[in-house]
Amino acid sequence: MKTIEVEIITIGDEILIGQIVDTNSAWMGVELNKQGFDIVQITSVKDNAEHITQAIDNALTRADVVLMTGGIGPTKDDITKQTLCKYFNTELVFSQAVYDNIEQLFKNRPNVMNPLTAAQAMVPKACTVIQNEVGTAPVTWFEKDNKVIVSMPGVPYEMKHNMTHHIIPRLQDHFKTANILHLTTLVYGIPESQLAIRLTDWENALPSHMHLAYLPNNGLIKLRLSGTGDDKARLQEEMQQRIEQLPDIIGEAIVAYEDIALEALLGKLLTQRQATVATAESCTGGNIAHLITSIPGSSNYFKGSVVAYANETKTNVLQVNPHDIEQHGAVSREVVEQMADGVRTLLHTDYAVATSGIAGPDGGTAEKPVGTIWIAVSGPNGTCSQLFQCGKLREQNINRSTQAAFFMLIQQIKRDIRG
Amino acid sequence: MKTIEVEIITIGDEILIGQIVDTNSAWMGVELNKQGFDIVQITSVKDNAEHITQAIDNALTRADVVLMTGGIGPTKDDITKQTLCKYFNTELVFSQAVYDNIEQLFKNRPNVMNPLTAAQAMVPKACTVIQNEVGTAPVTWFEKDNKVIVSMPGVPYEMKHNMTHHIIPRLQDHFKTANILHLTTLVYGIPESQLAIRLTDWENALPSHMHLAYLPNNGLIKLRLSGTGDDKARLQEEMQQRIEQLPDIIGEAIVAYEDIALEALLGKLLTQRQATVATAESCTGGNIAHLITSIPGSSNYFKGSVVAYANETKTNVLQVNPHDIEQHGAVSREVVEQMADGVRTLLHTDYAVATSGIAGPDGGTAEKPVGTIWIAVSGPNGTCSQLFQCGKLREQNINRSTQAAFFMLIQQIKRDIRG
Repeated sequence: MKTIEVEIITIGDEILIGQIVDTNSAWMGVELNKQGFDIVQITSVKDNAEHITQAIDNALTRADVVLMTGGIGPTKDDITKQTLCKYFNTELVFSQAVYDNIEQLFKNRPNVMNPLTAAQAMVPKACTVIQNEVGTAPVTWFEKDNKVIVSMPGVPYEMKHNMTHHIIPRLQDHFKTANILHLTTLVYGIPESQLAIRLTDWENALPSHMHLAYLPNNGLIKLRLSGTGDDKARLQEEMQQRIEQLPDIIGEAIVAYEDIALEALLGKLLTQRQATVATAESCTGGNIAHLITSIPGSSNYFKGSVVAYANETKTNVLQVNPHDIEQHGAVSREVVEQMADGVRTLLHTDYAVATSGIAGPDGGTAEKPVGTIWIAVSGPNGTCSQLFQCGKLREQNINRSTQAAFFMLIQQIKRDIRG
Repeated sequence: MKTIEVEIITIGDEILIGQIVDTNSAWMGVELNKQGFDIVQITSVKDNAEHITQAIDNALTRADVVLMTGGIGPTKDDITKQTLCKYFNTELVFSQAVYDNIEQLFKNRPNVMNPLTAAQAMVPKACTVIQNEVGTAPVTWFEKDNKVIVSMPGVPYEMKHNMTHHIIPRLQDHFKTANILHLTTLVYGIPESQLAIRLTDWENALPSHMHLAYLPNNGLIKLRLSGTGDDKARLQEEMQQRIEQLPDIIGEAIVAYEDIALEALLGKLLTQRQATVATAESCTGGNIAHLITSIPGSSNYFKGSVVAYANETKTNVLQVNPHDIEQHGAVSREVVEQMADGVRTLLHTDYAVATSGIAGPDGGTAEKPVGTIWIAVSGPNGTCSQLFQCGKLREQNINRSTQAAFFMLIQQIKRDIRG
């Protein structure tokens, strides 16, 4: 089966001067790739008719599908719609459906409908209009020589909504793409190269309609097994059988059998167990709490956190023994375990995790260089701790120790659930 | 003077499948734009010789400079160097200088120099080699028909080092670009459209060699005044005079006269005043503490934080009166002020900031909809608080209220310094 080639064109001066980072393309790349589309190029151009036209022309020499984001707002610098009209030799016509959608969006905000917003209801005659339920600018879908050109909003949540609900399903239908399934296995604590060595035989034994990808990030590796086949149920079963062989090969390093952030997985486990958690953070400085609370509904299981940056905060609030700080240093097994126990007692939670380390760039010694991090988990069955040697960069040390803390906490809760 | 047009080409399969977000281009866009270069297009292509060649060809039809990142690692999927050799009809030759640089980088790590890393010392004959002090892959600089093509590493810190120390200065020299100066004024709390209206007369009165840009982000707006001129000292003085007119027009909304993150500005002010700070966070969930501690050296002024997500944490740890929570709700002036005072007392700091709000998506009511956020600052001269109405999205509410908290804290410390 022919691979469908996609080119993404992001439009907007703000991207080229670096005022915003183009995160849309990466999201689209992931989602399209999952559905078996091949992204040949990502192109960012200015709000300039000539550049936009040139980019479309170039894209059509390579790709079957051109997905354009941005440049369709109500202000005069946005010219994508006019440029597409000219490109497809068509004119703007009024769409009552789009107008009604805008009115609906603004129904609780009087005086917002003005000539600029109303102008959003003018759409190119030669396209299929896809209603954008979450914004005023409609998605427009053009076809030319069996190729598809789509223009959609650049606002990330509008783009994501429309890609998920409209554009990807329509592309699958238009090109009659093959069934593709993905099973993601999250692995923690094994470097990518070692993991690849351990999985060599397993990977070599995969049938030709299955493919494995390694997607590493901050110590976590997403193993994504993809498969294609006409019979979806059978494919799912076949792939599931392969996945079930993994625990014998990589054991406890498997964190989850789904593509999920560790903070979300923690939330699921705590909800399942009806348990609560708290954090006591030194080197991670509140980042663990920040990620836990980025999940909607986290107030059901997260009671709070003590960021104990100063030693006196560790002793006064978390009841760490000052003698232990003096004797072993703040970055030590003794102190981090007392921090975890301390915050668990203070906030009356079932679980707690604590971090104490040297994030850098200063504060390292020969004995405890920058990147030395102790992490402890306190729970109903006791307290355990572990030493990590992360890297030299402050940001990386904070991120890696945060992920390590989530991993330790998750493994402990799982062990407790298994009993 | 002719504007120098630049095109950026980022190379790597991992960008197109969305495994990494291309943040390099945005950084390069900002830095090149500051120096007066105009970025016409950003193109991301695969590690594929044909695509890379096509991208260079297309770029040279538009741009004077082509800056390429990525695809020059030691593994076999990286083919940019070979592709450039073919493109410029040249061959690879051994560079002793590059070899010595690699040896130097590895001098504390035996057994790292292997055939793959040594191969990094093979460079195209027809280019100028720029020594990369922070990585093994050298930067290569080609010239063709008075145009410049540069290939550099994709690793962000290597790219940034080489752009700053080598590539931008060489480009300025090669194209004899004009002196360009920027003065950034940080403004908070005025929407961009209103700010533009208030600055209309001031902006219209600017001489033709000065230009103003608005760069908004999470409620903060960077006003960047750029100027060109042969006499650098005089230009600086002229621009400074314009900036000194701003306080009369936009007053207290000015946060700083430099391009600085609010958490870094807070650190400077606290260091200057030799004062300490703590945070008590409900809706921001540790994000304020996380940003404070992202700054190296923050342990000198940051003592810690209590993330008080549960009401019992607010009452037990921060001594908020349970009666006030019952009567006014956790999201209220009464509670947020007690949180700020409570954490300041608990951690013995000079200043404290507290947040309590409804981040969403759940928890909103008719009276207090999602996005209702109270923020309080407690300091040596008392406690003040303010109500904010942010948006509907959880992430945005967390980010906006974090910035608002930094702004209130900074303004209070400044008022105290002025006495």
